[in-house]
Amino acid sequence: MCAHKKSPIYEPLTENGAIALAKKLQLLPENSQLTCNEIGDGNLNLVFRVENPENGESIIIKQALPYAKVVGESWPLTLDRSRIETNALLKQAEFVPQYVPKVFYSDESLAITIMEDLSHLEIARAAFISGKDLPLLSQHVGEFLAKTLFYTSDYGMDQHYKKSLVQQFINPDLCKITEDLIFTDPFFNHETNDYEPELQDDVEQIWQDNELKLEVAKLKQIFLTKAEALLHGDLHTGSIFADEQETKIIDPEFAYFGPIGFDVGQVFANLLFNALSRETNKQQILFHHIETTWDVFVKEFSTAWENDGLEIYTNLDGYLDYVLEQIFEEAIGYAGCELIRRSIGLAHVADLDTIEPYEKKITTKQIVLKIGRELIVNRKTIKNTQQIRELFNQTALSVI
Amino acid sequence: MCAHKKSPIYEPLTENGAIALAKKLQLLPENSQLTCNEIGDGNLNLVFRVENPENGESIIIKQALPYAKVVGESWPLTLDRSRIETNALLKQAEFVPQYVPKVFYSDESLAITIMEDLSHLEIARAAFISGKDLPLLSQHVGEFLAKTLFYTSDYGMDQHYKKSLVQQFINPDLCKITEDLIFTDPFFNHETNDYEPELQDDVEQIWQDNELKLEVAKLKQIFLTKAEALLHGDLHTGSIFADEQETKIIDPEFAYFGPIGFDVGQVFANLLFNALSRETNKQQILFHHIETTWDVFVKEFSTAWENDGLEIYTNLDGYLDYVLEQIFEEAIGYAGCELIRRSIGLAHVADLDTIEPYEKKITTKQIVLKIGRELIVNRKTIKNTQQIRELFNQTALSVI
Repeated sequence: MCAHKKSPIYEPLTENGAIALAKKLQLLPENSQLTCNEIGDGNLNLVFRVENPENGESIIIKQALPYAKVVGESWPLTLDRSRIETNALLKQAEFVPQYVPKVFYSDESLAITIMEDLSHLEIARAAFISGKDLPLLSQHVGEFLAKTLFYTSDYGMDQHYKKSLVQQFINPDLCKITEDLIFTDPFFNHETNDYEPELQDDVEQIWQDNELKLEVAKLKQIFLTKAEALLHGDLHTGSIFADEQETKIIDPEFAYFGPIGFDVGQVFANLLFNALSRETNKQQILFHHIETTWDVFVKEFSTAWENDGLEIYTNLDGYLDYVLEQIFEEAIGYAGCELIRRSIGLAHVADLDTIEPYEKKITTKQIVLKIGRELIVNRKTIKNTQQIRELFNQTALSVI
Repeated sequence: MCAHKKSPIYEPLTENGAIALAKKLQLLPENSQLTCNEIGDGNLNLVFRVENPENGESIIIKQALPYAKVVGESWPLTLDRSRIETNALLKQAEFVPQYVPKVFYSDESLAITIMEDLSHLEIARAAFISGKDLPLLSQHVGEFLAKTLFYTSDYGMDQHYKKSLVQQFINPDLCKITEDLIFTDPFFNHETNDYEPELQDDVEQIWQDNELKLEVAKLKQIFLTKAEALLHGDLHTGSIFADEQETKIIDPEFAYFGPIGFDVGQVFANLLFNALSRETNKQQILFHHIETTWDVFVKEFSTAWENDGLEIYTNLDGYLDYVLEQIFEEAIGYAGCELIRRSIGLAHVADLDTIEPYEKKITTKQIVLKIGRELIVNRKTIKNTQQIRELFNQTALSVI
């Protein structure tokens, strides 16, 4: 097929351009006085909220930038991640439409995705930091994980079709960010690392810890090679919008076919960060969320396996248990990597960075580093989420 | 880019067409009386040998057929495997030009690859069956495996570039043949299976052996998901041309990014078939070949790892040992799968099928099935190639 139409040339949208696009596509009424604000707080994308003030109707226009703002324009990033994000949202919506924003339109050349406005919800990380419980979050996230991951794996998807999706979701630029910032830089004396001077001894201990580094190498190998299911790829609490009733998972631009345990582990770790940042008597809800995430994941994954398994060996006694054990072991290891990199690597989390006073922040990060190491090195012997809580309690006692 | 040129329409080449093509491309002199024979004994391709009888100069023109002959025209097969084969040969030639046929020309639309004629060599399986030793074969194959697999893995290839190759070598049709015929059908009562009636009890025992089937399910999962390196994908002794001095590995149309142990295990198993088909006093050279394949693989892989490792963790003590152990364990498991499927599945090997008298053939296949099971189930405890020989001796004694 020949495309004789001239391709639009990429340029970043302005607020007026966003309004014009919304009108042109008739997503909002042409004859109304639309308002627009750029609300992106990320560092990779423009995010415009376009609203019709007459009835409050609104949409989100998201556009990928060709560079990462966090380090200036010097770190170029492919616009292809916009295609990946749109396609991942559409694929996830086949299995869990209730947990992802609706996509109304996309334009690959302009790196634009137009989607449902979720401003009535709050970013889960911020909600947890402000002390909210988000009681249904873990039930929803557990179901999201189970269904998006099972139905895009060789267990639950036609294996021929899955291979074409693997091809479509090859995502080298964003995978490289994970490979560097999660699995490599924090374990070496690398310029991207960012930590308080009081942590210097702890950090050097990590750099010299060959037992730990060998296990991280193995987890990195699995991340690099194991095309198990279509991951979200960046499933921290900053990628979740929620309130008391509703949960929406956003921003799957890191999506690629990787190990199921990676998504699960990111969720575990980011719930732990918030637990660690709270007063002891307010931590229980977070451990409850960790346990519920896994319990619901197991329940929904097992149901899907029994009802919709396409791989003939899903009928074989023992195979589901083996797969779940493998996912859990890898999730524990990946949670450990996330704990370490968010404490001393380039990208931090507000849960830890806002802890006061300063001394408590340092002590908490030391606890995080110790728990991270234990999870990575002992991931084969940690068999349930209850043990995460026990490890947390023991480590907190040993440091304080 | 618009392709205004009309694409050639695929049709199978005739002998005259092959001669005309060789002349048109000036691969052989236009003014000579070229001869041509279709020499393909496979079931998926036409293979023309075009020769200039004046000086004996010759080339091979290989063309993929759009169906598998083995089951008539009813089993359609993508012509895309011709592109895969050509690209795999070219990629392998970057690392081991001495062990692959030179490619002179290819045409994706016509599914044609023109390459070096290797008729002065003999197919290794036939040579072994006729009692030859092929003394350098395992040294060459070990080096071929080590270099093609190391330099296309995340250990030795730029990880960004590797992902684009993974994308280029997605090979769903030919992978499905392996997934079905090696990992699935032989372990179930499936119509593709083909075995002597005397093996009915042994076969039913396999179908009911849940411990075995669970391990096969795990090996199939690894084959489906682990994009470790660019495999040959079908490395049996029928894909090797050799004589006393030279070795050439042909037919990589099953190439895709999979677990390194798969290629290694196929080699082990096919050397074992020949050992099993020989008189006891002529078996030693085959065990020697198995041991040499692995020893040379380890030596060359380790040298490449130390000199050319691109992954930072290749500098870490213990990581190479871990990777080699994992490869060996998987190779042992995959060898076991190959042993079983060549005895009772759709595609047999001449080594076993030509054993006489008939009773000996049955007994030998029973031994093969038992060794296959042991290799699969005990792959974690088998630590060196010497143990394969011991297992062989024990099993042979227990059956006879």
